[in-house]
Amino acid sequence: MGLIVQKYGGTSVGDAEKIKNVARRVAQTKDKGNQVVVVVSAMGDTTDELIKLAYQINDHPDERELDMLLSTGEIISCTLLAMALEAMGYEAISLSGAQAGIRTDSTYSRARIQRVDPERITRELDKGNIVIVAGFQGITDDMDITTLGRGGSDTTAVALAVSLGAGICQIYTDVEGVYTADPRIVPEARKLPEIGYEEMLELATYGAKVMHPRAVELGELFNVPILVASSFTDNPGTLIYGGVSMEVRNKVRGIAHDLDVAKITVVGVPDRPGIAASIFESLTKANISVDTIVQNASINNITDLTFTVAKSQLAKAMEVVKPIAKSIGARECVSDSKLGKVSIIGTGMQNTPGYAARMFSALSEHGINIELITTSEIRITCIIDEARVKDAVQALHRAFELEG
Amino acid sequence: MGLIVQKYGGTSVGDAEKIKNVARRVAQTKDKGNQVVVVVSAMGDTTDELIKLAYQINDHPDERELDMLLSTGEIISCTLLAMALEAMGYEAISLSGAQAGIRTDSTYSRARIQRVDPERITRELDKGNIVIVAGFQGITDDMDITTLGRGGSDTTAVALAVSLGAGICQIYTDVEGVYTADPRIVPEARKLPEIGYEEMLELATYGAKVMHPRAVELGELFNVPILVASSFTDNPGTLIYGGVSMEVRNKVRGIAHDLDVAKITVVGVPDRPGIAASIFESLTKANISVDTIVQNASINNITDLTFTVAKSQLAKAMEVVKPIAKSIGARECVSDSKLGKVSIIGTGMQNTPGYAARMFSALSEHGINIELITTSEIRITCIIDEARVKDAVQALHRAFELEG
Repeated sequence: MGLIVQKYGGTSVGDAEKIKNVARRVAQTKDKGNQVVVVVSAMGDTTDELIKLAYQINDHPDERELDMLLSTGEIISCTLLAMALEAMGYEAISLSGAQAGIRTDSTYSRARIQRVDPERITRELDKGNIVIVAGFQGITDDMDITTLGRGGSDTTAVALAVSLGAGICQIYTDVEGVYTADPRIVPEARKLPEIGYEEMLELATYGAKVMHPRAVELGELFNVPILVASSFTDNPGTLIYGGVSMEVRNKVRGIAHDLDVAKITVVGVPDRPGIAASIFESLTKANISVDTIVQNASINNITDLTFTVAKSQLAKAMEVVKPIAKSIGARECVSDSKLGKVSIIGTGMQNTPGYAARMFSALSEHGINIELITTSEIRITCIIDEARVKDAVQALHRAFELEG
Repeated sequence: MGLIVQKYGGTSVGDAEKIKNVARRVAQTKDKGNQVVVVVSAMGDTTDELIKLAYQINDHPDERELDMLLSTGEIISCTLLAMALEAMGYEAISLSGAQAGIRTDSTYSRARIQRVDPERITRELDKGNIVIVAGFQGITDDMDITTLGRGGSDTTAVALAVSLGAGICQIYTDVEGVYTADPRIVPEARKLPEIGYEEMLELATYGAKVMHPRAVELGELFNVPILVASSFTDNPGTLIYGGVSMEVRNKVRGIAHDLDVAKITVVGVPDRPGIAASIFESLTKANISVDTIVQNASINNITDLTFTVAKSQLAKAMEVVKPIAKSIGARECVSDSKLGKVSIIGTGMQNTPGYAARMFSALSEHGINIELITTSEIRITCIIDEARVKDAVQALHRAFELEG
């Protein structure tokens, strides 16, 4: 009994039958005496099809117009889900992001939620309605429609859970939960019954595609428990919450990996203040996300600066960096697009030595060369040859005994 | 030079190429130094496809949800048109019905516009933008999305022309204008360069499908000139305005026809006050539109009551009327679904005798039997066998010399 926010992704509402399936699950939650708010993504490929249509008309569609176009996808799925619930005899109402009070800034295509005005949702819940909210979208103070970018619908769900004071935010998706590694690569990977926010954040950021880090971060900030589970089975999922860390110290929780890594090295950079800034400011202006950055200690005031980007952004990043490298007197710019990334993650690693050594030796035993290393308090990441990522994930899963 | 409102229908924006074609036409209007507001319908079959999807999920979709679902169709086409204009180097912005300030009552699926708050449109026009507005939709005071029902986008266009003080409202469609009769039936039918509001209203109401009478009525009420023309050619269309009538007295302006006519006769009705009311109130409650109503003078306080409905509504209408007929002591209910309607229309008919006689004799010369007759000040309508409608239109076009 209480208020529950549920989110269903695009594959869960892919066609009329799947929407009816989601309606049955929502109805079960309502039947248990809960108030229910449901956030939905656009059906299956709707968003991709709308984007295709836009590009048939304009090679560089305006972001405001594109956001307004894409927002229709979630409106369609949420009205259909409301209709499916009504066909089963439940009272339901669909709300656009605007109607649900999702107020954002006006950064089109990747707007940030500024606040939620939950008055309308609360009113509909009080009437006994199941409230279906279009995910991924919001509205500016000027009544312009925005979309939230990557992880948008998850973020809508967590933001609603926060502002409505929901007891839990349930993210239903096409996987069964959070695993110790990708089960397609490591068959003995184990589903975690629970995981802490920070570990989940590192897992998500470093390649586990279950949930976008942005929504996890929001959950952590406001301490909202998030359940990740399958919309197609009744198996228990993974609960992401704050109370986990202490009980699982001295443990690696999971292995994340990512095959979408390209590397740029600016060789022979004079070690002067402002040099790094000039490079990364230009990349930001060109809307290129830089991931890992490594700069070695300089010798004779000359250093090498290496950073990674998504493979699709490598060409553009080289265009931006080359002239800057020349102007600052660097020797050359080299790139490598055949890389991947593997990370071990766990709060148990804090202040505990030996994890890095075990990781590096496991990789070396399998003849896997490490190109770059970066670490956080609860994570160690190695950039390696993309062809060896699968071997590395399997080796590390065994080395840290995650199957047990 | 001035402010022009243009409206493009669903066939005019049916695909990416057609949207680009509309963009070129809009751009030409802008190039002539005008401020331009464009109203668009949903692309081609979009609305029908969304309705189909809704009915896959719910046999009786809730009207509020259906309106919200359908509203996405016009959002899609208006954002794409804005993108097409931007690709040509024009500044454009799309606005939903809500953003454009189209405020309606909350009669879902056939909402009425209560007022237009044109502040946002005016602001965008002042910035130099071409403003693209999603037709057919509005918003209630409670921020719920409504659709306007039949003739909705035409009505949006005329309402915007009224509230913005536009010099003209141009309705671009898949026909070249208003003809003296349907050119598919009467090859020598002539396009009218101009026509009065009332004549257009009667033509539209009595079967000419060029424009919905509702939008014509609004234009007449606020005296906004409306041009009906083709979106595929540059031929001059037909101007609908108030200044025509005096110059074309003593003339039939056009022949309208309609093949969608079914007739119900309640035979042997006791002629008491309230009898007709009880029948038509029940039909209204069942959402059945009654067209022509004829009641003959009663003999011995017994009369026959005849009315027509659309063919698709005949079965439902009979279900409603039969029990009432029984309860009021009528003898029986009979129906005929194989009927059509032909009308002659012209303000010149006012106070001028002889038109009815000429019409009836033209029909009789061709052996066409008249089932029912109704008239207005500027129209005479005969209900006839549907199989003879084509002959009747041709005969009347000749009899009133409309080809000249």
